[in-house]
Amino acid sequence: MSLFQLAEVRELLRDSPLDFGAPVEQVRAVFHEMIGTHPLARDVHFADLSLGGVPAIEVHVDTDAETAAAQSGTSSLLYFHGGAYAAGSARDSVGLVADIVRRCGASAYTVDYRLAPEHPYPAATDDAIAAYRGLLESGVPASSIAVVGESAGAGLAMAMLLRIKQSGLPMPAATVVLSPWCDLSLSGDSMAGKAAVDPALTADALRTRAESYLAGADPRSPFAGPLHADLRGLPPLMIQSGSFEILLDDAVRLAARAAADDVAVSLEVCPGAPHVFQGFAEILDEAGEALDHVATFLRNHLMAAEKARTGPKVSPRRCRTTMSGPVTSAMGR
Amino acid sequence: MSLFQLAEVRELLRDSPLDFGAPVEQVRAVFHEMIGTHPLARDVHFADLSLGGVPAIEVHVDTDAETAAAQSGTSSLLYFHGGAYAAGSARDSVGLVADIVRRCGASAYTVDYRLAPEHPYPAATDDAIAAYRGLLESGVPASSIAVVGESAGAGLAMAMLLRIKQSGLPMPAATVVLSPWCDLSLSGDSMAGKAAVDPALTADALRTRAESYLAGADPRSPFAGPLHADLRGLPPLMIQSGSFEILLDDAVRLAARAAADDVAVSLEVCPGAPHVFQGFAEILDEAGEALDHVATFLRNHLMAAEKARTGPKVSPRRCRTTMSGPVTSAMGR
Repeated sequence: MSLFQLAEVRELLRDSPLDFGAPVEQVRAVFHEMIGTHPLARDVHFADLSLGGVPAIEVHVDTDAETAAAQSGTSSLLYFHGGAYAAGSARDSVGLVADIVRRCGASAYTVDYRLAPEHPYPAATDDAIAAYRGLLESGVPASSIAVVGESAGAGLAMAMLLRIKQSGLPMPAATVVLSPWCDLSLSGDSMAGKAAVDPALTADALRTRAESYLAGADPRSPFAGPLHADLRGLPPLMIQSGSFEILLDDAVRLAARAAADDVAVSLEVCPGAPHVFQGFAEILDEAGEALDHVATFLRNHLMAAEKARTGPKVSPRRCRTTMSGPVTSAMGR
Repeated sequence: MSLFQLAEVRELLRDSPLDFGAPVEQVRAVFHEMIGTHPLARDVHFADLSLGGVPAIEVHVDTDAETAAAQSGTSSLLYFHGGAYAAGSARDSVGLVADIVRRCGASAYTVDYRLAPEHPYPAATDDAIAAYRGLLESGVPASSIAVVGESAGAGLAMAMLLRIKQSGLPMPAATVVLSPWCDLSLSGDSMAGKAAVDPALTADALRTRAESYLAGADPRSPFAGPLHADLRGLPPLMIQSGSFEILLDDAVRLAARAAADDVAVSLEVCPGAPHVFQGFAEILDEAGEALDHVATFLRNHLMAAEKARTGPKVSPRRCRTTMSGPVTSAMGR
């Protein structure tokens, strides 16, 4: 229990100037300031690359050989950042991605999908499926890939899985979504029920961002709001949410939908925790524990898929373009 | 993946003569034949005892000292068997209880609560709370107790927690419910949605048993159908369900209710698995994996509660009455 830590994190968010309903330039600047300027740990390295023509960042964390052997070292995570489809970037997500990579091994690729309002739906889903295709084409087998997303990026991850199913591509081994936003019609009971305790999000702000992303498209289109989709055939799914967030019911209803559709699903709700609380691992015990569960889930399913896969190992061939720039912790690699 | 194993278990259930809608003597005889006559492993020992005046069985599994030290060896599980409030017994549950105990250490007490129709609601809940009080009064601190239940026993476990809250007793450290039946009004969508794939249960049979248990009481009374209760203040809760069972929505809605009420909750749904699939650990990989997750959850929360507890260790003082009788595997203790 870390009631004090939780209260501190919520206060941090409540005092923050982030308002997703503000003009988009302001949202982007504040979001970047909040999420993307925190110094990275010295063991984190990253590099720009392109996956199927979509810019992305490859993230590595130093691991000793013994740990690497026990981890899912040959696997790849494909990561989609949050930011309500309007803000955030692959670079801003490197800290949280590294916190996952450090726990489970694997390489990670965090995708710079296009944002609204300049690029409304379905631009982000086009980029997501292109990046997945690119990873496959680079030689990484689908059974070595797990998909991870947070908030809008979690909704995007689910939408991408539906695109994968539609196009007949092979499915990845597993999916993890943190505080998923997967209902752009905002119809969950927690929109009102948790409004008083959510320190980060408001329904009004999400409505602004949903309208901007949809640009007239149906919010219940499965590729825009994957909660309203047939999820049959999707890989094992882990969903985490805080109980102090208006998006709680997106997580809960996604679990219900997956279970009804015979998808292996694991839902974890952390009481008193806010939206994407996993981002606060440095100061919040629950965040570290939740990420430990994510890593265990990813390792188990990536290893199971690896075992199930027949044929010789394929050595990944990736399209690395440029090393990252001035961030200290990215140097010395 | 063990699609063949899952299909085999479902066929086993589909071919079974168990019909919960049959006359109660027949239900009891068939249920006992199915669940209670399987030989126990040689490492399992059990003994009759009384907990707060309620008959129960203490279950132990041989463990080497090293394993015991790594496990939650000083903890106690309080277990409630299934059988639709009409059938089953503590003795019938020893096999599954032992499969949990073997994975997490701890002692376990499985309770012979009174059954309907002879003893309708609230007799079972009276027995459950009496057994919990008895365990506390024997010197076991609440923080060393976890509550586990299957099917109707899972609903009973939840009802007992609500009685604990009502009476101001200290809460146990954690709760695990397997395929919980916690809505006696049978209002879940899966009652119809999963009817075609559930090889074990029918809504008609459950309706018969609910009417017999309730004997006119309101099915939405929180102590009869804890899905309809305020769950605030309950300890961390793990819920497991198969996706091929008409009670799936009891599990999913219980998770939703717990999350809304700020209870730490973890829901796991195993696709294609039937009601209380954890009972088939000998022939079903998913069952063993699910029980491994149960054990990890129990250990983590019992250890966390143990750490949080101040004061000196209390040595449990239990009211053992008779050693168990003629079952081979219970001898030699």
